[in-house]
Amino acid sequence: MLEKLKEEVYQANMMLPAYKMVTFTWGNVSAIDRETGFIVIKPSGVDYDKMRPEDMVVVDLNGKRIEGKLNPSSDTATHIELYKACSQIGGVVHTHSRYATSWAQACLAIPALGTTHADYFYGAIPCTRDMHEEEIQGAYEKETGTVIIETFAGRNMMDVPGVLVHSHGPFAWGTNAKEAVHNAVVLEEVACMAYQSITLNGGAFREMQQALLDKHYLRKHGKNAYYGQK
Amino acid sequence: MLEKLKEEVYQANMMLPAYKMVTFTWGNVSAIDRETGFIVIKPSGVDYDKMRPEDMVVVDLNGKRIEGKLNPSSDTATHIELYKACSQIGGVVHTHSRYATSWAQACLAIPALGTTHADYFYGAIPCTRDMHEEEIQGAYEKETGTVIIETFAGRNMMDVPGVLVHSHGPFAWGTNAKEAVHNAVVLEEVACMAYQSITLNGGAFREMQQALLDKHYLRKHGKNAYYGQK
Amino acid sequence: MLEKLKEEVYQANMMLPAYKMVTFTWGNVSAIDRETGFIVIKPSGVDYDKMRPEDMVVVDLNGKRIEGKLNPSSDTATHIELYKACSQIGGVVHTHSRYATSWAQACLAIPALGTTHADYFYGAIPCTRDMHEEEIQGAYEKETGTVIIETFAGRNMMDVPGVLVHSHGPFAWGTNAKEAVHNAVVLEEVACMAYQSITLNGGAFREMQQALLDKHYLRKHGKNAYYGQK
Amino acid sequence: MLEKLKEEVYQANMMLPAYKMVTFTWGNVSAIDRETGFIVIKPSGVDYDKMRPEDMVVVDLNGKRIEGKLNPSSDTATHIELYKACSQIGGVVHTHSRYATSWAQACLAIPALGTTHADYFYGAIPCTRDMHEEEIQGAYEKETGTVIIETFAGRNMMDVPGVLVHSHGPFAWGTNAKEAVHNAVVLEEVACMAYQSITLNGGAFREMQQALLDKHYLRKHGKNAYYGQK
Repeated sequence: MLEKLKEEVYQANMMLPAYKMVTFTWGNVSAIDRETGFIVIKPSGVDYDKMRPEDMVVVDLNGKRIEGKLNPSSDTATHIELYKACSQIGGVVHTHSRYATSWAQACLAIPALGTTHADYFYGAIPCTRDMHEEEIQGAYEKETGTVIIETFAGRNMMDVPGVLVHSHGPFAWGTNAKEAVHNAVVLEEVACMAYQSITLNGGAFREMQQALLDKHYLRKHGKNAYYGQK
Repeated sequence: MLEKLKEEVYQANMMLPAYKMVTFTWGNVSAIDRETGFIVIKPSGVDYDKMRPEDMVVVDLNGKRIEGKLNPSSDTATHIELYKACSQIGGVVHTHSRYATSWAQACLAIPALGTTHADYFYGAIPCTRDMHEEEIQGAYEKETGTVIIETFAGRNMMDVPGVLVHSHGPFAWGTNAKEAVHNAVVLEEVACMAYQSITLNGGAFREMQQALLDKHYLRKHGKNAYYGQK
Repeated sequence: MLEKLKEEVYQANMMLPAYKMVTFTWGNVSAIDRETGFIVIKPSGVDYDKMRPEDMVVVDLNGKRIEGKLNPSSDTATHIELYKACSQIGGVVHTHSRYATSWAQACLAIPALGTTHADYFYGAIPCTRDMHEEEIQGAYEKETGTVIIETFAGRNMMDVPGVLVHSHGPFAWGTNAKEAVHNAVVLEEVACMAYQSITLNGGAFREMQQALLDKHYLRKHGKNAYYGQK
Repeated sequence: MLEKLKEEVYQANMMLPAYKMVTFTWGNVSAIDRETGFIVIKPSGVDYDKMRPEDMVVVDLNGKRIEGKLNPSSDTATHIELYKACSQIGGVVHTHSRYATSWAQACLAIPALGTTHADYFYGAIPCTRDMHEEEIQGAYEKETGTVIIETFAGRNMMDVPGVLVHSHGPFAWGTNAKEAVHNAVVLEEVACMAYQSITLNGGAFREMQQALLDKHYLRKHGKNAYYGQK
């Protein structure tokens, strides 16, 4: 079932160690098949060097396992909420990459300071609010998705395809699994450079000009994009 | 004697260069066989790329060499104190990994700032007190173990399986040698991210919510754990 | 056409991932053939591991594509301005390397703090001014070149073969493509060390002595150079 | 001539890229044969991946080339001063390694903050004074050696086998070429950790206890050393 998607999800998961985005098993990538509503996701706690495409787990949008012997990632319920909230999302990734996680632990949004950021994220990358005790003690992983969605209320999640979960780490997404991981790598890069720009300046920063943010985001995204071989 | 344990200790020692936790020979891993009370430990000052399983040294809980031609690690007496203090400890590791050592040199405990920390350490990772001159000039390596144990007085050492030795560096432990090294790698990762979170914020930080710390530690540890393939 | 130059430009582009100067496709190198006035440049958005020498694109000084099936780098117009402004420039490179970009995002020039800097850059590496909205919304890539040239008004661009573009990242140049990339790598190294020197000192710094700057720059450059095998 | 020493110096030079201590050709190692007073040193500006043992250059203590087709390192005169000042020095190394150079650019000595430092350096690693204009414009490389020696006036250079040259970078030494490079790697490691300890603490630091410094230095050095397989 969904063999091609399993292969894609497997390959996208394997990009995480290749781009030094994970230590041990700390990361997971999923993708959705919008026709069936089934999600393919990494199994929980399996080493990257032992993982095979056929280990990918298939679940439905209620989190019920449809296929696979292993338990799906413990973050599956968070992925599901994101797929339900935005129909354009085709792939989701979660990591504990060093710089993005450091921002999440500082409970700070990453401001747009330069064109690297603007090429992928149309404005600051937000940090979610504190979760309430009931949310943490209840359906925690599902509620993690809920607070992410609340953070983007009234906005298109595709314009800023990533978020920092407060005291936790980053989630990123895209139209498919590979693009989601691509965005997660950019988020880490942007988190590093913003960290360095701000600490260099004694904690101060100035957001980039709106006109420059518009220019860079829109030359790669939207109708009039002219970057690459399009 | 203890050939299987020697192989395990050898493999755990070899994880240190693989995870970039050591420069030159600065690190050592041991494990204990609780039946005989014998400890298997890395020899002192031997290069990782020349070391073989049969070079591991066997000592008893008084530090007496039982088997092996080479001298055991100069930190052996510290390892022994930890094994004596907590019967659940099966493996011990010491490194001078960069970020954890930087915290030890700053004489600061690593506060719990996020879920990466909470997944493995149930609260702040403490830093030991200054040693007295008599302790330094006396049985120094043994006394290093004594101050670690004093730091955990009244607590279960397995809840926070690592410590920073003041002006020195980290020790970590686990139920076996591999788990001890795993915890040492996490300690280094957590030390890095806490460093970055705090310097980003001009030296300020806020500890994570207790409810979130509970949730993450307890979903991986204890009776009701549900992470991984358990 | 220009097969030898294509090979050189290809090799210089491949130095970028080798020296860890780029993530994904974020970087581009070009070189000019001064006889024909033709420029050879990397295609836009092509992966380094799939790129071949024959994929290099040939454009003229008006930006018109002379040869090649792929679109040239979206930064081509910036490269062209630099070639037109200074006849000694034979190669140009643009990257988003981490430390140099962090300085560009902090909108700060990199002061000359040591001999590593002085061996290649004869004074501070400047940061360009904010671009006006008309410049951003107009011929943006060309105007990026214009503000760089404005920054060097009255100076020889070969004395300081690199610049930080405000809220963007570094450009560097040299007498050929390889030397341009060499200078970009040095710029990143210098950006890292100046970041560390300044944050170590609580934000303060002192520029190096003029006599020392003169000594180091001039022992490698100019008539009386005595460094290397010259 | 001195074929064995050439091989040793070549191997020691090749340790520099292996330990990520150099970018391009920025580093040089030498060793002295105390019987003849001849010094074997790396040629100037030669790539590490093209260098062979037979490229090493032999010079005498006046800097006169005795053997070899290539020019010796431009820092040869500095090496010579160190060999003349301290008869125990058998090998010398100079690099622009990132953290040590950052301290040199901040014009600060590296304080002894922990046992990693104390295992190799018996106290702070000093930074030389500003050089006078006459020194810079005169026999600059020789005078660089002179200010290093001045910095150690009245002390045994073997107790602290490294120094930061103001606005420049580190030199380190040892009883032979390999030990010199070993000390340079430790110096870089110590420079990194001291940087991190101090920036973590808002610029403040406390030097380690003298008793702990004594204990660690003396358990590896001197008559009563008991570390390693001695």
